[in-house]
Amino acid sequence: MTASRLKDIAPFRVMQLMERAKALEAEGHRVVHFEVGEPDFATAEPIVRAGQEALALGHTKYTQALGTPALRERIARYYEETAGVRVAQERIVVTSGASGGLLLLAGLLLDPGDELLMPDPGYPCNEVFVGLVNARPMRIDVDAASGFQITPEALDAAWTDRSRGLLLGSPANPTGTLVSRERLEALISVVHRRQGMFLLDEIYQGLVYGEAQPEYRTGLAVNPDICVLNSFSKYFGMTGWRLGWMVVPEDCVDGVSRLAQNLFISPSSIAQHAALAAFEPEAMHIHESRRQRFAERRDQLASGLRGLGLEIPVDPQGAFYLYVDVSSSGMDSENFCWRLIDEFQVAVTPGIDFGNHLADRFVRFAYTTGEAEIDLGIDRIGAALQTWRSS
Amino acid sequence: MTASRLKDIAPFRVMQLMERAKALEAEGHRVVHFEVGEPDFATAEPIVRAGQEALALGHTKYTQALGTPALRERIARYYEETAGVRVAQERIVVTSGASGGLLLLAGLLLDPGDELLMPDPGYPCNEVFVGLVNARPMRIDVDAASGFQITPEALDAAWTDRSRGLLLGSPANPTGTLVSRERLEALISVVHRRQGMFLLDEIYQGLVYGEAQPEYRTGLAVNPDICVLNSFSKYFGMTGWRLGWMVVPEDCVDGVSRLAQNLFISPSSIAQHAALAAFEPEAMHIHESRRQRFAERRDQLASGLRGLGLEIPVDPQGAFYLYVDVSSSGMDSENFCWRLIDEFQVAVTPGIDFGNHLADRFVRFAYTTGEAEIDLGIDRIGAALQTWRSS
Repeated sequence: MTASRLKDIAPFRVMQLMERAKALEAEGHRVVHFEVGEPDFATAEPIVRAGQEALALGHTKYTQALGTPALRERIARYYEETAGVRVAQERIVVTSGASGGLLLLAGLLLDPGDELLMPDPGYPCNEVFVGLVNARPMRIDVDAASGFQITPEALDAAWTDRSRGLLLGSPANPTGTLVSRERLEALISVVHRRQGMFLLDEIYQGLVYGEAQPEYRTGLAVNPDICVLNSFSKYFGMTGWRLGWMVVPEDCVDGVSRLAQNLFISPSSIAQHAALAAFEPEAMHIHESRRQRFAERRDQLASGLRGLGLEIPVDPQGAFYLYVDVSSSGMDSENFCWRLIDEFQVAVTPGIDFGNHLADRFVRFAYTTGEAEIDLGIDRIGAALQTWRSS
Repeated sequence: MTASRLKDIAPFRVMQLMERAKALEAEGHRVVHFEVGEPDFATAEPIVRAGQEALALGHTKYTQALGTPALRERIARYYEETAGVRVAQERIVVTSGASGGLLLLAGLLLDPGDELLMPDPGYPCNEVFVGLVNARPMRIDVDAASGFQITPEALDAAWTDRSRGLLLGSPANPTGTLVSRERLEALISVVHRRQGMFLLDEIYQGLVYGEAQPEYRTGLAVNPDICVLNSFSKYFGMTGWRLGWMVVPEDCVDGVSRLAQNLFISPSSIAQHAALAAFEPEAMHIHESRRQRFAERRDQLASGLRGLGLEIPVDPQGAFYLYVDVSSSGMDSENFCWRLIDEFQVAVTPGIDFGNHLADRFVRFAYTTGEAEIDLGIDRIGAALQTWRSS
């Protein structure tokens, strides 16, 4: 009785693992959580305060479908402040999370049978947005050798006359890798030569670590003629508020606007008012110190896991994920995850939740938990590997 | 370059009229607003306070995709309190506005080429949700003679082997009419005989006026085997928070859950915490007194317009709309709207925004403005009609 697209939507394995974790906790066990794709920090105090003030002032009505002029203007200014890029305010579309943006783009670009290219592994929901409009998600396998990012050659080879565009993330989920400036230019060039749309998911923008500055702050600095997705969830720590934004080419604004009016009416008024505070110095200082914490955790977790003989083939430079090859455990990744939660109370996400390519070897670790928990998790995984390898 | 569905999405005429209204106000004119489909009241104070408290307590993270257990349980209890209906908590799905619910249902039920039946006139966005998944909205003309609601005979005649269900609103937008219990039973019976899904939009539930109690408080009291859409926007006055809910048949919960996880992640955590307060006596008292205000405004506006010779062929029993036949003005409805805003600074919505059937005769008035404004609006329309009829 349900639409045929439902059979293409597998339940996330991690949901079952989280159920198991919850059951263990109810039994009194302490579970180490490396599965959660959400910062463990609550929303920064200045944003919370701005939300409370918005409520006190009665900002509880629908707003413009594309977002309040004040927030669109503020986002434009953010690009100028952080990346020196001028983005016309008209191109900025405030959305209900990046999820809202993905839905609008799928509705805008894809007819039935059209294809959208994306990496495997990648953010799993992307396929569902494409399937919702009866288009086809076309996965391009990516490997450690190419930094877990699509190469121009692979893109060119995968492109067909039904391909309408490319969607990729940088920093990427689940691998945490970036697309270099040179690679980005080459990929955009392929897409534009093919008259497709280049969609860059920058929801982990800002969560980039390491000594060197990133080569570019936003893809818009490399080529203004792309579409960028962003979110207040990750760097700005506003997951539960459900707010994001896009920068779309000017000739897409009218179509996006008509879709947004009909499908969403407007993003949350309260979240939009609060988000204005997210860009101000007081909140930015908090975001930056959290970024520093994530950087330290990344190093702590990566060196701990490597010390146990687990392979992290590409140094992750951003987001809050490590994509770890667990094949040296002698188990496939899903089995690894289940035994790890059942026997050692550590929760991680199996590669199958992000695609098929090498999924049986890889596991995603999220360092969205405290430093003591990370140490405990490493100890437990060490014990697990010792037990399993000697059995 | 955009998907072909875009050509089926006309911009709302009322948007241009609102632009015009805004320009007139910028010139110093006082505009009477009868076009706004949103209560003029801000969210009730107890809900606002609960939102502020939720923020203070750090409820800023993702929740379960189907909503927090506390809110789902509270909604179930609301059905028991107000309608004496037991609804299993598992059937309740918290959504990002009723819009989120409509999207989930379209994704759940409709393959390309499938049809969803709905009345003409009706809520215009319904067609866009259906078009998003490449299915076909099939409009059934409804007239004053049948209370602007579909008859079982018309439904049976319109049903084809591609029809998957029926979607209608009670109270309805734009007409404010209810479906009688007898009619509802008959319609559900046709849909179930055809093995379709009956979708009842109850977002104006609670906003019913008049001496008599409505024949039923929710369609679930008439037949539990239907799908109901609801919202915190209208009766509960939480438009800008973007929160709604659905009650779906048990065998749909798994599919809806997988779609919701992928397409939305979760509804707003802050809105969900605040909404718990919406059902408590303090807030319910405010909602009820606002309902009384709407009832008085309905009478005020309806008798004022009828006094001017404009026809309201069916007494509206709910929502906050009057659907008014303006053909006695000698103009078609769109021309009527434009001349009314241009020459007399009164904004109303032309019938064309709600469908095609009789759209050139009808105009929607929303009584979402204060009593003094309503009097002023009636005076101005009286002057307009006098001017136009004598010219």
